[in-house]
This record gives sequence, structure tokens and C-alpha cells, in this order.
Amino acid sequence: MSTPPAQPGERPPGELMLAEIREQPGTLEGILSGGAADARSVASTIVTRRPRFVLLAARGTSDHAALYAKYLVEIMLGLPAGMASPSTLTTYGARPDMTGVLWIAVSQSGGSPDLVDSTAAAGRAGATTLAVTNNPESDLAAVAELHLDMRAGTERAVAATKTYTASLLTLWLLLTHVRGAPTDAAHALPEQAAALLEQPDVQSVADRFRFAGTLVTTARGYAYATAREAALKLMETAYLSAHAFSGADLLHGPLAMIDQDRPVIAVIPEGAGGQAMWPVVDKVHERGAELCVLGDPSVARRGDCVLALPAGTGEQLLPILQIVPLQRLAHSMALARGYDPDAPRGLRKETSTW
Amino acid sequence: MSTPPAQPGERPPGELMLAEIREQPGTLEGILSGGAADARSVASTIVTRRPRFVLLAARGTSDHAALYAKYLVEIMLGLPAGMASPSTLTTYGARPDMTGVLWIAVSQSGGSPDLVDSTAAAGRAGATTLAVTNNPESDLAAVAELHLDMRAGTERAVAATKTYTASLLTLWLLLTHVRGAPTDAAHALPEQAAALLEQPDVQSVADRFRFAGTLVTTARGYAYATAREAALKLMETAYLSAHAFSGADLLHGPLAMIDQDRPVIAVIPEGAGGQAMWPVVDKVHERGAELCVLGDPSVARRGDCVLALPAGTGEQLLPILQIVPLQRLAHSMALARGYDPDAPRGLRKETSTW
Repeated sequence: MSTPPAQPGERPPGELMLAEIREQPGTLEGILSGGAADARSVASTIVTRRPRFVLLAARGTSDHAALYAKYLVEIMLGLPAGMASPSTLTTYGARPDMTGVLWIAVSQSGGSPDLVDSTAAAGRAGATTLAVTNNPESDLAAVAELHLDMRAGTERAVAATKTYTASLLTLWLLLTHVRGAPTDAAHALPEQAAALLEQPDVQSVADRFRFAGTLVTTARGYAYATAREAALKLMETAYLSAHAFSGADLLHGPLAMIDQDRPVIAVIPEGAGGQAMWPVVDKVHERGAELCVLGDPSVARRGDCVLALPAGTGEQLLPILQIVPLQRLAHSMALARGYDPDAPRGLRKETSTW
Repeated sequence: MSTPPAQPGERPPGELMLAEIREQPGTLEGILSGGAADARSVASTIVTRRPRFVLLAARGTSDHAALYAKYLVEIMLGLPAGMASPSTLTTYGARPDMTGVLWIAVSQSGGSPDLVDSTAAAGRAGATTLAVTNNPESDLAAVAELHLDMRAGTERAVAATKTYTASLLTLWLLLTHVRGAPTDAAHALPEQAAALLEQPDVQSVADRFRFAGTLVTTARGYAYATAREAALKLMETAYLSAHAFSGADLLHGPLAMIDQDRPVIAVIPEGAGGQAMWPVVDKVHERGAELCVLGDPSVARRGDCVLALPAGTGEQLLPILQIVPLQRLAHSMALARGYDPDAPRGLRKETSTW
């Protein structure tokens, strides 16, 4: 069921990726209206299993959606959680006792053999298994006990964009229902995402960083997934040497390689995760690096440049919005550097790993 | 109890780091002779608790030792495991139910407030807590129920080297005793590490990569910790833009930014983890990148250059040896680029994060 990648020259460079970035308000709207019942139903099954531990398995962009879900699980549900290393179950054949484990595999294609095999192994080992995919016909959906559809429609660009925000919202809805909390706060997202598609800052930041060879993204907490996903988009479309670090990990070593030629994009939401970034901002300033702040107007003034977000969304849902200007930044930087973000060198839409 | 960092000009650049790299055979010997009883005693306590999940908490270099332990726990002990996100317990105040959890915090200094606070919170939430530190008087050692000393002696260079291999061996001994398996295989390590101190390949690889701005390290399984730690050493001492990816994650996007100007160091041990790297090696060759292989003679011939390791050690213990030539590489590249690896810009020996 994989879609062939775009061939260079068939259409204007980046047309597919931009179109899918722009579909996101509609995709989010569709999940809120059409996906809520499925999320509620899967959540009620999970509640009956009373999981004690959650493992999340994914690769690439989906791994960042899974990382976001890890924070939701730990903070909102009060359950310990970890990112699975699929190779321990596939390459090494480990057979851990997974009684009481909820195993959540996230994959746009649902096709990568390591995720299919490790999810099947987790089920045999006693875990409740859930696949979150954009393809209900996929092998991953088939081997998992439970399935949630991302409902993002066919994604044709190699660089995942709409399936990322779709998986964030799907996972948020699921886990909010597991907690039994209201989901009303999500209903403002489509309109807020639409406003971010028109935000004028992106092009000036792309122009400013046009000649940077290396760039660092950083955040803490819920927003750490945003930093990770932004770096991946910049690597795979604009071929930047883009690093993502949690703000705390950045201070434990990588800070030394930051200098005036290596700019930093810091994601600073309102709330605890943003507050925890201020010591990081101070250290980045000390290193003489240019700092671009992605945040609401109250925090953005601390940066040399700004990607403005609306105030008042709360940091738990913000990752669904934060990534939109950063997807546009990757797209713009790829074009500015002469690359076609629809056809990244060396990549295909569906990646198989074992 | 922190040691002041070396001041530039006090001594020849890199003298401290090189001395501590060279102490490693002796440190390993000391752990095998003096630390085995403690490891066995802590292991027997852990066995009586019958943990069902293991969470590992650490930052920087110690985070890579914890990552190595995650593979040991999953494969050797057959327990699900995850890397903790300390900020969920500190910044966000999450209070998950940790009944049945073994919480292992790894820290050279034992001083970083986020680890101290999250370990205390894990204990209050019902976890069995173990601190592995190089300072038995540290706050982390005090708040944890159990403690293991790395026995590495005072480490003065900012870039951790001997405490890294000391924590790997300490964790391996502990978990092997939890499993009730023999530890004889480790007794060859000091002599093997000593041989790697004299290995002549390192300088030629340092010369070859002298002008690379960006470099990628990659591995799978047990050796993934080696790739991560090597990239950190290259960032914090030689200020390279050094990325580490699991071989599988590399293929899911970052591959696109690899080209002829961005060399790759692949760690390819004997065994399953090494076998799983061959598809990655093929893709790196397709991207036209220079490839340096760290492995035994049977695999090293696939690289454009080689860092040779002895054959026959088995991939579970190999990370304790693999890092030695890569520590030397970081030291040599820092000197070649005109930096003092004993005094990385922007860093102190003990980093406090919240």
C-alpha cells in the first residue's frame, strides 16, 4: 500500500510537502469529528486492562509522536513509561514478561518489519498491544490487538507532516479518554493551526539561517518532541546538520559545540516546560549563538529572532501547533538551498528496518 | 565535592583527559577485584524485590551507560525497561505508581538536582531505587535505597572517560549477578583495554577527519551506547557537529543529510547487533560518505578506514572496549583542531540541571 515517492521534475519542488502542511487544519478537524468515537472505544478497553507500565515503539517522525505520548502517560495517567528498543525483541530475540504492559506502536505506514515483529512478540509476551497507523490495512494494524487510524488520508511527500500532527492528536484524544478527562480544549486547534499557516515570520527565519550548516533545536517536557521532529525535518529536507537536545541534556556536554556559527531554536511554551528552559537560554547566550525562540509573545522577546505562537493554549496541546511553523521552515530552507523537499536523496516514503 | 575544572595554560592541553583514558585498564581491574562483592550484595537485594520493570535515569555520559544497561535488562534479564524522563517527576510533579519498578540512577558526580529529586520521588512512589555514582558521599547516593560505587577515583577532566567504562562494567556485573550468571568473561577486559591504548589506527583516523565539520556515528543494540558516547565526546572536546543514530533510525530520515563531506563511523561488533548494521552500511555507501568501521578484522574491511578491535569478546561486553579508541579519537581531534579537551568551553565538571 506504499505510495511511490515524487520524482524530481514532475512538479514544482516542495509542492507536495507544502500541500500536506496546509491540509493539517482539515486533518485535525476530521480527527476531532470522526475519530473521537474510536479513541473513546479503544480507551475503554485499555481501562479494563489496568496497565501498569506503557512501552512505546516507533521510528522516525512517529518516534517523536510516541515521545509526546510518553510525557502524557507519565504526567496525565501517572503510569511509568518507556520507549521500546524494538531490536531487543527482533535482533536479539528477547522475550521479556510483558504482563501488565500496554504496548503502543506508532507508524504512518504500519509496514516496517521491526515494528510488526516486535509488536507481535509483545502481544505473545502478555502485553495489550495497540497500533496507531495511517493504514488500517497494514501488517502492523493486523498484528496488534487494538488499532487506531490516524485518519490523515494518503500522505505522498516523503517527509511526514500531516501524519505527525494527526498522530499527536490521536494519541492525546486516546490518553485523555483513558484518564476520563474532557477533550474540549482540542477544538480550537484546527483554527489555530490555520492561522499558523499564514504566519509571516517563517520566511525571514529561513532567510536568516540559509547559510547555517549546523543548527540546534532544544526544548523540555512535552515540547521536546517538537524539537526532535523539527531537527528531523531539517535533516531530511534541507540536509542541515540539525541536532535536537532536551534542554537538560544540552547542558551536559553538547553545549560546548555551540558557537556564533551554529544557531539555536528553542521551543519555550507557557508553563513548567517553558520555565525550565530559561537556564538553557542563558547558557546559549553565553556561548554567543543566535537564538530563535518559538513561543508566545511573552517569551519570544528573549530571542534574536522569533517564531510566534498564540498564547493561552497550554503546553500539553501546544506540540500540535508548534511543529507547523517548523515544518514550513524546513520546507522554505530546502527550497532556499536548492533542494526538492518532496524527493529527499536516499529516502523512500516507506522505510523497512529489521 | 566537585573538582574545579582545569584552567587553560596550567598544563599541556588534553593531559588530564589522556591520563584518565590511560587509567582505564587499572580502573576496570579495580572494579573486578574490589567491586564484585558490592555488586553481588546489591544484586541479591534486587532479586528479593522481584522487579517487574526497570527505569533508568541519567544525563550526559551516564545516560549512555544507562542505555547500555537498558539492553542488558531487556535481553539478559527479560524485563521491560525504559529511560526515565526526570522532568516528568521534577518539572511537572508527576507521581506515577512505581510499585514493582526498579529505578536505577547513574551519575558520576551524584549531584545533579533533577536526578536527586526524581530518585527521591521514585522511592516515595514505591520503586526500589539504586544509585550508581562515583561519589558515595553524594546527595544521589544518600537519597537512593541502594548504592554502587563506580570506584573510578577522582575524575578531573571535564569530559568523562574512566567513569564511563567504570559504570558500564559496574552495571554489567550487577545485572549479571541479578541473573545469577558467571562473570568470568569480564576478566580479560583490563588487558584488552590496555592493548587498545596502543592501537596505531587512531591518529590516522583523526588526521583523516580533521577538517570534517559534521560527523555521524551509528550502531545498533548494545553498541548503540558506544555511538552515542562517541558523538558526545567529539562534541564536547573537538566541537564537532557529531550526530549519533541507531542504525534503524538513521534510515528513517537522517540518511538524507549524509554526503561525501559528512563521514560516518559505524560500530559493527560480531553477533546480532553487528549483522543488523549491514543494510545501514550499504545505504551509507550509496550516499557517497566515507565510512570508518570500528570492529574486528572480519568486518573492518568493509570500511574506507578502520579502528580495529580484538575478535572474540562477544558483543555484550564489547562496549567497554569499543569506546576506548573513540575517546582517543576525540582527544586527538580536539588537539589537532587547536582546542584543549581538558577545558571545554561553556562546561564545568559537575552540571546541575533541574
